[in-house]
Amino acid sequence: MKPSILFKNIHVISAVPDPLLPWLSMENAWVAIKDGLISCVSDNRQDAAETLDGSDYSEYDGRHKLLMPALANLHGHIPMTLFRNQADDTNLHDWLFNVIFPREAKLDEAMVSKGTRLGLAEMIRSGTGAAADMYYHHEAAASAAQEAGLRLNFCCDCKSKDASGKDQVQQALLEQAMKLAEQAPDDLLRASMLVHSVYLYEADVYPQLAQLAESLNCPVQVHVSETRKEVVDCLQKYGQRPPKQLADFGFFKTSTLAAHCIHLDDEDRQILASPTITCVHNPASNLKLGSGFADLRAMMNADIQLGLGTDGAASNNNLDLFRDMRLAAFLAKGLSGDAGMMSAETILRMATVDGMQGLGFDQSGLIAEGFAADLQVIDLNQIELTPLGNPVSALVYSGSGSYVESLMVAGRWLMEKRELKTLDEEKVIFEAGQASEWLNQF
Amino acid sequence: MKPSILFKNIHVISAVPDPLLPWLSMENAWVAIKDGLISCVSDNRQDAAETLDGSDYSEYDGRHKLLMPALANLHGHIPMTLFRNQADDTNLHDWLFNVIFPREAKLDEAMVSKGTRLGLAEMIRSGTGAAADMYYHHEAAASAAQEAGLRLNFCCDCKSKDASGKDQVQQALLEQAMKLAEQAPDDLLRASMLVHSVYLYEADVYPQLAQLAESLNCPVQVHVSETRKEVVDCLQKYGQRPPKQLADFGFFKTSTLAAHCIHLDDEDRQILASPTITCVHNPASNLKLGSGFADLRAMMNADIQLGLGTDGAASNNNLDLFRDMRLAAFLAKGLSGDAGMMSAETILRMATVDGMQGLGFDQSGLIAEGFAADLQVIDLNQIELTPLGNPVSALVYSGSGSYVESLMVAGRWLMEKRELKTLDEEKVIFEAGQASEWLNQF
Repeated sequence: MKPSILFKNIHVISAVPDPLLPWLSMENAWVAIKDGLISCVSDNRQDAAETLDGSDYSEYDGRHKLLMPALANLHGHIPMTLFRNQADDTNLHDWLFNVIFPREAKLDEAMVSKGTRLGLAEMIRSGTGAAADMYYHHEAAASAAQEAGLRLNFCCDCKSKDASGKDQVQQALLEQAMKLAEQAPDDLLRASMLVHSVYLYEADVYPQLAQLAESLNCPVQVHVSETRKEVVDCLQKYGQRPPKQLADFGFFKTSTLAAHCIHLDDEDRQILASPTITCVHNPASNLKLGSGFADLRAMMNADIQLGLGTDGAASNNNLDLFRDMRLAAFLAKGLSGDAGMMSAETILRMATVDGMQGLGFDQSGLIAEGFAADLQVIDLNQIELTPLGNPVSALVYSGSGSYVESLMVAGRWLMEKRELKTLDEEKVIFEAGQASEWLNQF
Repeated sequence: MKPSILFKNIHVISAVPDPLLPWLSMENAWVAIKDGLISCVSDNRQDAAETLDGSDYSEYDGRHKLLMPALANLHGHIPMTLFRNQADDTNLHDWLFNVIFPREAKLDEAMVSKGTRLGLAEMIRSGTGAAADMYYHHEAAASAAQEAGLRLNFCCDCKSKDASGKDQVQQALLEQAMKLAEQAPDDLLRASMLVHSVYLYEADVYPQLAQLAESLNCPVQVHVSETRKEVVDCLQKYGQRPPKQLADFGFFKTSTLAAHCIHLDDEDRQILASPTITCVHNPASNLKLGSGFADLRAMMNADIQLGLGTDGAASNNNLDLFRDMRLAAFLAKGLSGDAGMMSAETILRMATVDGMQGLGFDQSGLIAEGFAADLQVIDLNQIELTPLGNPVSALVYSGSGSYVESLMVAGRWLMEKRELKTLDEEKVIFEAGQASEWLNQF
C-alpha cells in the first residue's frame, strides 16, 4: 500500500492530451495521489481530498512551487557515466578506439551496476523519471532501476557468438528479459531488443533479429543515420540508405526508438514517419561529436514522432535533460533563423508525454486524473526563476535540473527536498568513483 | 583591512599567463589571500602561511573542492532580467517592438536598480565575478555593483537631445562616469562609453563620440554585425561594412568590447584583430534570436581577441556563464564537424583571464601570486561531477553555475556555501518580482 499525498496550493503545468490545445497552467491547484496514480487535479481542496477518502495522506505545501510531469530521456548508455570527462575534444575514431573500447573491455556486471546507479541518481536529481538504456548486462540495469524506482526501457543484447565465431540469435534470452520487465512492480520496466545499428553486425543476423522482435512483439532500440559515414557505407554495402535497409530487414514493425536520425532524405523521413517509431534527437552529443544537425523542421513536417535524449555521459557530459531541452530549442531556432521554431511548449511536450509514449509508458507524462504519479516539484522561490514569466518558457529557457526540489515516480518519492530517497548518494559516489578510477587506469 | 584567508588542501585550476602552456592543476594546494590579493599558491602550508604572517586569518577546508578563477561575462544588459520569460519564441522585430520597447519605456532608475541587483545576484550564484553592462541609468548600475561587490564595466550613455531634437554629446557626463569608476574602492568599476551600434544614431554623432572616447581614453561597448540586416543597411547607407565604418568614424582607438560580431568577412576580421578590441561571442542569444553563427575558427585564425557573454536575460534566458561555455564549445564543434575545435581549455580561458582583460581588469582571471583574489570554489562531492576526469573538461562540459559553492571578489566573499553575503536574496527576489509584475502589466 503506497502512501497517499495531497499537493496543496501548487502551480500545475502539464501538456494536455490534444497537442493542438494549450498547456494546462493552474495556479493554487490541489493534486491528489493514491496508489501511485493521480486521483484528482482540482482548483479546490474538497474535490481532491475526497478521492483520498479512507486513506491516511500527507500534505505537500505547494506555495511558490510548480508541479510538472517527470521528464523522459529517450536515448543513452547509462553506465558510460563512468567514462565522463575522459579525453574530450577528441575525434570520434580516436575517442572510440583509444578511450571507450579499451575501457569497455574491462567492464563487468558489477561495474555496469555501479555506473547505472550513478546515472540513475543523476537523472533523478535533474527531474527525469523514465529513461532508455542501450547497453550490456541488462539484468544489472533492470535491477538498479527497480532499486532506484525509475522507469527504464532497457536493452537486451540477444546475439552471441557460436563456436565458429558466427553470430547467433538467442530467443530464450530475449524472452527472459521481456518476462523480467513484465513482472516488475509498478510497471517500471520495458525490455527492448538491442540492435546497435545497421553497420555493426553481419548482414544475415538482421532478418533473424527483426523476425524475432516481430514474433515476440518486442520493442527495439537502434542507432539510425548518426553519421554521414554510416549512410555512405550502407549505400555501398546494401545499395540503400539505413532506414530503408532496416525496414527491408523487417524492422519497425514493433515499437522502435531510432536514435539520432541526423542524415535523412525525404524517403528516409517517409519511412520513419510511422506510428511505431520515435526518432530521438540528441542535440548535445550530435554537436559535441560533430555528427551533424538533425533537421527537426523537416521531421516535424513529415509527422515523425520525436523524443529527446542525452546520449551517454561520455558525449554530453551529463544527464540533465533540462540542458538538452534548452539546447534543442535554441539550436532549432538558430539553424532555421526562425525564433518561433521549436517553441518551449513543443520541446517540453517531446520531453514529457511524447517521450513517455516513445518509451512505452503510455500512462505517464501528463498531470491528469488516472495517469501515473510521475511528477516533479520545482522550487520557484529563487533568483534564477525570478520573474517566472511564462512558466513553460521559464522551465525550458531558464530551467535547470538543479532547480528540481523533489521527484516522484509511480507515487514513490525518489528525491525529496534534494535528498535521494531510494539510492544512497554517498555510496553511489564512492563506488562509482572507485570503479571509474580502476577503469581509467592504463 | 580585509580578512586574510588560507585555503587548505584544495585543488587549484587556472590558466597560466602564456596561452600556449598547459593549465595549472595542483591538488592539495595551499592558497593564501591577503589584502584582497593572492599572496601565495603553494604545495605546502608553510610557504602559504608565511605570507599571512602578522595577520589573523581564517581557514577554508578545501578537501573535495576545486578553486578556480571567477568568470567574466563580457556582454549583457543586466536589468533585462526583469523581462525574463516574457514572450519567447517570437521573432526579433515583434519581440523588440511589442515586448521590450514598451516595457523599457516604463523603466526608471529605481527599476533599473532592482533589475541590476537581480542580475548581479544571479551572476554571483553562478560564479561570475566581473561583467559588462550595456544599459541606461549607469549610476544605479555602478551603485548596485559596489553594493554587491562584483566588478562591473558599466556604460555611460553620453548623448542627449538638444531643444531641436538633435543628438548632442555630453563630455561632462562621461567624465563624471569615469571619475565614479576611478574612485571606486578595490578597483571594482570601469566606465565605458555606450555606442549602441552603427545603425541607431545619426551619422554626425559618431565622429564626435569617437573623438571624445579617444580624448578621454575611455573604453567603448558596441554591438557589431549582429544581424545580416545590420550589415546590409550599413552597406546601403555608408557604402561599407560595420567594422570599417566604425573604424572610419574613429572608434577602436580605445579598449573596445564589440558584441556579437557574427556576420564578418576577411576585411572585417582584419580590422577587429586589434589589441584594443575584444569580440564578444554570445552563443545562446545568437541562437535564440536566430541571428546567425559566429565563425570562431576564422576569428581565432585571424588572431582576434575573444570573450564570452550571456547577453541579456530576455534573450538567453539566464546569466549562468557555465551554460554559455558549454554551448559555445559544443556549437563550435558541431559547426566545424571537428570535435577538437574549441577545447575546454580554450573556452575556459576566454571566460576567465582573457575575459577579465577585455573588461579592463588586468589583475584578475588567474590564480597566481599578486593577482586579485577573484575566485570561486566548486564542490566536487556530487553525483554530477563523478568521476571528475579532466577537471577543465568537467567544469566546461559537466559544470553548472549551481555547483559553485562560494565566490570571492577582491578578497571579499560575495557568496559563501550558497549564501549571498553582500545582497539580501529575499529582498532582491521580492523587489524584482514586484518591479517585473508592474512592468509586464499592459
